[in-house]
Amino acid sequence: MDEILKSVLKEVKPTPADRKRLEQVAAELIGQTNAACAKLDIDAKAMLVGSAARDTWLRSERDIDVFILFPEELPREELERQGLAVAREVAGAKGKEQFAEHPYVTMKFKGFDVDLVPCYDVAKPSEIKSAVDRSPHHQRYITEYLTSELADEVLLTKQFMLGVGCYGSELKVQGFSGYLCELLVSHYGSFEKLVEGASGWKPSTVIDPERSYPDPSEAKRMFEKQPLIVIDPVDASRNVGAAISMQNFATFVRACQDFARGSSRRFFFPKPVRRLSARQIQATLERRGTAVFCVAFSPPDVVPDVLYPQLRKAERTLVTRLTLAGFEVMRSDVWSNSRALILLELAAAKLPRVRTHIGPPVSIEVGNFIRAHLKSKRKFAGPFAGATGQLIFELERERPNSRKVLEQALREHATLGRHVGEAISKSYRIYEGNQIVKLCKDEEVREFISEYLTRCLPWYRSSV
Amino acid sequence: MDEILKSVLKEVKPTPADRKRLEQVAAELIGQTNAACAKLDIDAKAMLVGSAARDTWLRSERDIDVFILFPEELPREELERQGLAVAREVAGAKGKEQFAEHPYVTMKFKGFDVDLVPCYDVAKPSEIKSAVDRSPHHQRYITEYLTSELADEVLLTKQFMLGVGCYGSELKVQGFSGYLCELLVSHYGSFEKLVEGASGWKPSTVIDPERSYPDPSEAKRMFEKQPLIVIDPVDASRNVGAAISMQNFATFVRACQDFARGSSRRFFFPKPVRRLSARQIQATLERRGTAVFCVAFSPPDVVPDVLYPQLRKAERTLVTRLTLAGFEVMRSDVWSNSRALILLELAAAKLPRVRTHIGPPVSIEVGNFIRAHLKSKRKFAGPFAGATGQLIFELERERPNSRKVLEQALREHATLGRHVGEAISKSYRIYEGNQIVKLCKDEEVREFISEYLTRCLPWYRSSV
Repeated sequence: MDEILKSVLKEVKPTPADRKRLEQVAAELIGQTNAACAKLDIDAKAMLVGSAARDTWLRSERDIDVFILFPEELPREELERQGLAVAREVAGAKGKEQFAEHPYVTMKFKGFDVDLVPCYDVAKPSEIKSAVDRSPHHQRYITEYLTSELADEVLLTKQFMLGVGCYGSELKVQGFSGYLCELLVSHYGSFEKLVEGASGWKPSTVIDPERSYPDPSEAKRMFEKQPLIVIDPVDASRNVGAAISMQNFATFVRACQDFARGSSRRFFFPKPVRRLSARQIQATLERRGTAVFCVAFSPPDVVPDVLYPQLRKAERTLVTRLTLAGFEVMRSDVWSNSRALILLELAAAKLPRVRTHIGPPVSIEVGNFIRAHLKSKRKFAGPFAGATGQLIFELERERPNSRKVLEQALREHATLGRHVGEAISKSYRIYEGNQIVKLCKDEEVREFISEYLTRCLPWYRSSV
Repeated sequence: MDEILKSVLKEVKPTPADRKRLEQVAAELIGQTNAACAKLDIDAKAMLVGSAARDTWLRSERDIDVFILFPEELPREELERQGLAVAREVAGAKGKEQFAEHPYVTMKFKGFDVDLVPCYDVAKPSEIKSAVDRSPHHQRYITEYLTSELADEVLLTKQFMLGVGCYGSELKVQGFSGYLCELLVSHYGSFEKLVEGASGWKPSTVIDPERSYPDPSEAKRMFEKQPLIVIDPVDASRNVGAAISMQNFATFVRACQDFARGSSRRFFFPKPVRRLSARQIQATLERRGTAVFCVAFSPPDVVPDVLYPQLRKAERTLVTRLTLAGFEVMRSDVWSNSRALILLELAAAKLPRVRTHIGPPVSIEVGNFIRAHLKSKRKFAGPFAGATGQLIFELERERPNSRKVLEQALREHATLGRHVGEAISKSYRIYEGNQIVKLCKDEEVREFISEYLTRCLPWYRSSV
């Protein structure tokens, strides 16, 4: 193994002491969970899953996932009731209930982030009742195929993903899950072989470890428009890479191409984002010469996996509305923490009042087109024939002011995602141009804006 | 015949007195020309051609075309020398020498615009030595096929073309020649049948009166990208509609569609262009909210058929340069009289300083793309992956100011057409925005700008 990889592995691999500590805590949690089942007379058993269960956790990760497996016959409401009862018994006052497909409980426990997740113990993964029911099967599959040498390769892969910014399948990140890293290493045989293989990936690459599909083209049809298709060995109807955005796919492939040309620690441990001062932010905004708007509001109280898709939906809606009104949106982004932000950067805040309205080509009847505009008060000129023979009217633009378009779009809450739309309907504020500097008093906002203005693939970041 | 057409015909058809007058003058010119040949001992003979020779002239037209036919064997220099000698003898001090393919002489004579054009008397039109040699053959063809009833239909067609703004094959107009009107009437059988037929024309319509091509698709291949293809009955290698621009083609087809739905005198006699006052021009320019530039210079001393293609070439070059620099050119136009003008209307005079530079897709190697920009002083941000997976840099735009782009393009004379480029290299001035009002002290410029700002198909013009 390459010297760089050896040194990276040394840094990211848990020490025997780390491992012993985690094993003790995990055993304690499993014991407590099984005891709670017994005490409450509930027919269920605890199972350790995830990276903690298969020695593929990075030293920086502090996650323990305990699944509580219930018999398949149990009605769903009973599973939810009994599952929560067991989890509450284990977590006590430290627990916090969360809601995804099922309710589950999270807690801090002896320095670890613990998830207590009720699920069904289904015999065939194809008959699962909810996404979490797959996890015990993933656990069994990976345990069977992943040797301890491969576990080291998984650690390198995860740290690489983390370094280049693609690690995590949560919807805020839209990247590669830990399970996906394990599958890729098991499929390619090592981190370096994965890098070599991924350098040649094109959008719609299919990886099918168990050859569940006779032909990759079938998998492509099944998972249309998904940049990376990795068929789940325990459930052929699922793409383990479903969460990956085109941006993250492209970023990972570029990272592999660049790493293959010249390996470096900076892929695993990139320089941090350069934090700009308020004055630097103001100067950069002025230098760009664009029209920047930041819609700020109180984020709705939902988990990030619910919030981020809605923020992106709202972002897309606003971008579409501005584009349809004739504005060029150069870039946009969303962010949330104590406040939610939708950032929109336009080439210009205002458009000329006249706009060119192009009619059908010469071979198509245009009576209605002409009647609709000929006597219009909004008519500047026309009809006349353009260079391609299509009839043209020059009309007055209804909204030449982008802020007005934005405000109008923000009034239509239904198009902004349910919770985000509701939050915006209560109150929002638009920060424009230099006003954005005010928002940067919040250190986290300043980091978000700094990253936006200096955006760069992490391994190309300079320290200047 | 429709009452409207009858009344139009009455207005545009020369009276017997008009006709007698023209016949007398034409006979006088033919006599003088033949006498000049005899006097100078030159072997040539005069021939009356064009609309005057075939009773298809509008009362408003005052053109007499006298061609001087020389034997085929005469060397070209001799034809030019002898032809000019004869023409000068006829025209005397009134004559003005012009240069197209051959030199020829124009003069005012008893109220008529007379062209004295030397040409070869070739037996087969396929063996002509210059475009003008075809005219005697056109004369013979039309005389054979056009009855006096059809001559009336030609008058209606010409007046219709004139009214809707498509009459004239000179390169300033890029419309339908008189000969083309005659061919179309002879082909369709009447003005009304032509209108009906042309309502269905699509770009690349082929009309082949003598069926010179076995299949229209051959003619289409031969005259690619020409909107109307009318095969010359006397020379199958020529498209009589070659001069017609897509705009004029579309305008004529629309006019026919509209006339077929409801005939009206306004197609033949449209309202005049509304002349705006200087104040109205200023107000309209402000209301449009665009950035208007007018490049003004002294026109080179060449005939309109040389000048206008060059003006349009210069216009295209400037539009292309501005477009490549990122500016949106909404409309442009050229004009010339005592001064030459190139008018350019942009959506905005300035662009943001930042521009998005998009690299190749993920499957293509990008080492050079990244190296070229990573350390650039012009870099704002990047490289990062965009929504479609392509790498993006945000760079500083070199010329965010359209006037600078325009000035730079005007310095490159070679790209502006030979004579126009030379004229601009001597001196030019850019009028911007409200400064254009100053130009409108010249009544003709005011008319040009008025037409530009109120542009409308002539039959839709309102009097307000």
